[in-house]
Amino acid sequence: MKPADTTDHIDSTDMATPTYTPQLQAFQQVVESRRSVRRFTDTPIPDAVLADCLRLAMLAPNSSNLQPWEFYVIDSAAKRELAVKNCMGQNAAKTAARLIAVVARTDNWHEHAQQVLREYPIQPVPKKVKSYYTQAVTMDFIRGPVNALSVAKWSAAQVFRRVKGPIKSPYYTFDDVKNWATNNTALGAENLMLALRAHGFDSCPMGGFDEPAMKDLLNLSDGHHIVMMIGAGERADNGIYHSQFRFDQQQLVHYV
Amino acid sequence: MKPADTTDHIDSTDMATPTYTPQLQAFQQVVESRRSVRRFTDTPIPDAVLADCLRLAMLAPNSSNLQPWEFYVIDSAAKRELAVKNCMGQNAAKTAARLIAVVARTDNWHEHAQQVLREYPIQPVPKKVKSYYTQAVTMDFIRGPVNALSVAKWSAAQVFRRVKGPIKSPYYTFDDVKNWATNNTALGAENLMLALRAHGFDSCPMGGFDEPAMKDLLNLSDGHHIVMMIGAGERADNGIYHSQFRFDQQQLVHYV
Repeated sequence: MKPADTTDHIDSTDMATPTYTPQLQAFQQVVESRRSVRRFTDTPIPDAVLADCLRLAMLAPNSSNLQPWEFYVIDSAAKRELAVKNCMGQNAAKTAARLIAVVARTDNWHEHAQQVLREYPIQPVPKKVKSYYTQAVTMDFIRGPVNALSVAKWSAAQVFRRVKGPIKSPYYTFDDVKNWATNNTALGAENLMLALRAHGFDSCPMGGFDEPAMKDLLNLSDGHHIVMMIGAGERADNGIYHSQFRFDQQQLVHYV
Repeated sequence: MKPADTTDHIDSTDMATPTYTPQLQAFQQVVESRRSVRRFTDTPIPDAVLADCLRLAMLAPNSSNLQPWEFYVIDSAAKRELAVKNCMGQNAAKTAARLIAVVARTDNWHEHAQQVLREYPIQPVPKKVKSYYTQAVTMDFIRGPVNALSVAKWSAAQVFRRVKGPIKSPYYTFDDVKNWATNNTALGAENLMLALRAHGFDSCPMGGFDEPAMKDLLNLSDGHHIVMMIGAGERADNGIYHSQFRFDQQQLVHYV
């Protein structure tokens, strides 16, 4: 008797296994071998390598191509010493070949919208694109000094939603804009860390630093927000503190 | 006459060009070929491929391994139809093989800290690690109902800073915790999008959606924040709207 074909009722697509191309395997190796490295060797990161990593960082997707990210590479000895102190002297900062402040900007969306129009690959810029960057983007971000327009904007959004159905949630407050900029900048930061790995180097993203002190040191204004500090360099033998673990996928992924 | 050796006074490290290993080239191709794709073909993404992409997403670095991310894959036809409406019917949602809500949690840091201790790879958990996850993490996140402790916490931080020097900036308000969770979750989202590309698929991260309506649809609480919607699938011929461009690196990278 033929054994029951248990796959009969299952969509064959769902049973497909991934195709392990060399590209996929290389990518998986980069992601799987990236660890938060807390001690680096004395080997420097060449400028050209760092520049390529930053280029790849800036290829991350970002909202409307407004690119609210900035990267401060702290190379001067004097600033470096203080920056390490502002990271409370942790090894990942102290031993890093390069120390980078990854910064999100909340104050240049308008300026960058104008720049996108100037550098847009299709010239003259199509009407729809032009009105998007002059009108829609402004409506999305504008909130007035000290969020003065927030309440009016929120009320208008509720009326719009009732009349028109779903609407894109605009940014009502400074914290909303900061959240938007952080979100975008983190995408770039992840590319940066993976790129360092692909180049044979490593990184440690740090949330443990004194943000006001670090902003003072780097001369940053209220429109700059340090999303994370990244220590980068060559992995030392004792650079990883324990084996990697993550919660079960079933706990954090929901099929609905 | 021998030509002057112009490299004499330049640190040879700075002139080094990157070593183009096959792994680096594969990684660069993944990052460089990723675009925000707005139209997808009918080709489905196999479950095993999506599961591998989500596995790679969850290997992103994150603060203290607290993993505040969640991924809602909207597969049911009824929910899918409403979710597309909540993305204002945009093509990147409408034509996507899979539609994923990437969610940051502001309410499970304590629970996850406990879980990290239970699943920690070294057992019994070292004293320092245990006190970190029970005391330091709590001090970092606690803010009381309606941020009741924020002002006291902020004042204490100023005193500490004056006495001890630089201190890690704690989270004072709900918005601070939301920003922290968004930051972490975006790192995972970037891995997810790159992983899809490495698997031969594509994605479009969307900020253009009605967050309150989408949260209602997915039954999400105040502790859930939708960081982005991701449409994923196979790139259609007309899926990319214009060539990629970024601002000059010199504008956004500062060596200080």
